Amino acid sequence: MSLAYVYGVGTSYFGRQPDQTDYSLAWRAVREAFADALVQGVDAAYVGTVFGASGVAQRALHAMGLGGIPMVTVENACASGTTALHEANVAVRSGRYERVLALGLEHMTARMRGGIHPELTDVEGATGLGMPSMYAMAAHRYLSKGMATAAQLASVSVKNHHHAMANDRAQYRGEFTIEEVLASTMIADPLTLLQCCPISDGAAAAIVGVDRRVAGDVPIRASALRSGGLWDHRSEQVWGFELVSATAGEAYAAAGIGPEDLDVLEVHDAFTIGEVVTTEALALVAVGAGGAAAAAGQTAIGGRHPVNPSGGLLSRGHPLGATGLAQTAEIVWQLRGRAKGRQVDGARVGLVETMGGGVAGIDGNGCVVAILGG
Amino acid sequence: MSLAYVYGVGTSYFGRQPDQTDYSLAWRAVREAFADALVQGVDAAYVGTVFGASGVAQRALHAMGLGGIPMVTVENACASGTTALHEANVAVRSGRYERVLALGLEHMTARMRGGIHPELTDVEGATGLGMPSMYAMAAHRYLSKGMATAAQLASVSVKNHHHAMANDRAQYRGEFTIEEVLASTMIADPLTLLQCCPISDGAAAAIVGVDRRVAGDVPIRASALRSGGLWDHRSEQVWGFELVSATAGEAYAAAGIGPEDLDVLEVHDAFTIGEVVTTEALALVAVGAGGAAAAAGQTAIGGRHPVNPSGGLLSRGHPLGATGLAQTAEIVWQLRGRAKGRQVDGARVGLVETMGGGVAGIDGNGCVVAILGG
Repeated sequence: MSLAYVYGVGTSYFGRQPDQTDYSLAWRAVREAFADALVQGVDAAYVGTVFGASGVAQRALHAMGLGGIPMVTVENACASGTTALHEANVAVRSGRYERVLALGLEHMTARMRGGIHPELTDVEGATGLGMPSMYAMAAHRYLSKGMATAAQLASVSVKNHHHAMANDRAQYRGEFTIEEVLASTMIADPLTLLQCCPISDGAAAAIVGVDRRVAGDVPIRASALRSGGLWDHRSEQVWGFELVSATAGEAYAAAGIGPEDLDVLEVHDAFTIGEVVTTEALALVAVGAGGAAAAAGQTAIGGRHPVNPSGGLLSRGHPLGATGLAQTAEIVWQLRGRAKGRQVDGARVGLVETMGGGVAGIDGNGCVVAILGG
Repeated sequence: MSLAYVYGVGTSYFGRQPDQTDYSLAWRAVREAFADALVQGVDAAYVGTVFGASGVAQRALHAMGLGGIPMVTVENACASGTTALHEANVAVRSGRYERVLALGLEHMTARMRGGIHPELTDVEGATGLGMPSMYAMAAHRYLSKGMATAAQLASVSVKNHHHAMANDRAQYRGEFTIEEVLASTMIADPLTLLQCCPISDGAAAAIVGVDRRVAGDVPIRASALRSGGLWDHRSEQVWGFELVSATAGEAYAAAGIGPEDLDVLEVHDAFTIGEVVTTEALALVAVGAGGAAAAAGQTAIGGRHPVNPSGGLLSRGHPLGATGLAQTAEIVWQLRGRAKGRQVDGARVGLVETMGGGVAGIDGNGCVVAILGG
């Protein structure tokens, strides 16, 4: 099988945008992606959304003149956007289509009332465990076992908000101190407001196609998708670790590279502890070393493993279905050397990782890892 | 590419089942499909649902021990179940997986309040056009142009309710006269209650895999998926006709057969007019001849083109995401000669067709046609 390539990417602005709609957000992302790809039309579309209404993908794309093609809406919680990318990648690599649109969109302010509510048919959701409390339990285990300190967790927020200073599409930007992060409103102890991703509206898109040997096309070296399960309390690891580790292992093996080969990463930092655990699960650092690595600047732009130069979910924002493709867009811009004030010098190989819990149905999670460039 | 095969199928009972859950319905369908397929485990799962909560697929399948595999939830309105089948078929044919579960599920009584509400961001939905009124407009055009009579439309309901007499999983069964159908409560003139599909709960599943040369495995000769659009009022045809026709044309060409080769069909009779239009779009009969064909018994079991021996959406029920796989299960049973009291004698080639409007987002529709057997 030959590789599939990202021809072009596009995104909307991210943030609370009640004046926008699913369709206007999608339009911005798709229009930019086509302009960037220098093509017109695709053979098929995969569209990731979590709370979008039935048919939102078709309505959005028909209005842009993309009617008649096969369209499949995919849902995989916070990994819905990267699920669309993964399905597009596999479809092109297998020769099923020559060119596919992967789109993610989410207008959370219109579709949700105040946040993601626990799904009561989920065993963990039924206990009242929402996403913040789930991640807080992971953070508590790290703190209690001496695997990270509260200040180290906060340093992830400081870093990602700083990175977002150079991202004019980010929802939040700011220069904070660790003390300020720790002093912000407590959401789920020990996670404070500045350690939690916001409610966001946004869309992001990528055009994926066969090799055309055009400068700026970025190869998808590998992508992998897995589903996980309940927090296995017999495990020494926190929720999500094994799933991310297994999915990354599959992607590394398929790409023929290891974590030492990665120049830049966009990972699922819905909460600060999430980024710490993910850098460990991706084997960038040893288990229990992620907090210290963040605090030491190893995961900042200029560090050994720059993570979330866009600002990540914490600062760029987290429009659920759009997130995976917003991450993909950032990696593509980085690998092209066009990330302006947040460029990672000489970035050649990048990784995208998204892990979704079943929207406070924690049981129903999935993970996608994609490796681009090289 | 070699063909993919349906190893086994399973369904729940269909009907309003407030005592069941998404999970118990899925369990019945999946358990039966595995027992029928004589296998354990799959490499991946595609799960179709329209109103299921985020993560419902993972929760349902993890509880059955199917954790860790790639799972993708797909949504394509009423064609969500056949979209799962289509993606499974393509994945196996392309060598991506050896064995895939396609599951459709919908617990409408729990997830919806009284029906499918028009989506206000849809241009047609915003006018108040729900599905019954959309189909009623098509029926009116047929009546006003002399392409069908009210009695002919009603004969579809008589036939499908009669077919369902031999289907103990159907939501409704009954021996009605044309007069009784016409005299039932008016829903959207000229469509009366007995000409409209009910609100249903149910699940259906198929295990799709590579050729293993086992008796009872049913080859998927072809499947096609397309998206449609708004009712083009410049067209002489009613909404959906062109989409079904184009999708079927693609499937016929890929399978190397034509409508004259079909022994049995399960098609999208959400409303009586829908079945009439679909038999014409599938080229079983000429445009404008579908109503007369139904009234003459040509689409009944024993007729030239038996359509909806299961009772169809009108009588078996229409649990949105499950419908396409319930249709698939019926065709598999028919092709194996095991459809008991509703068996189409000597059935060797069957067709499944589902067309979804974007749940009263009429713009956002899609269609899947699959051809099995032969």
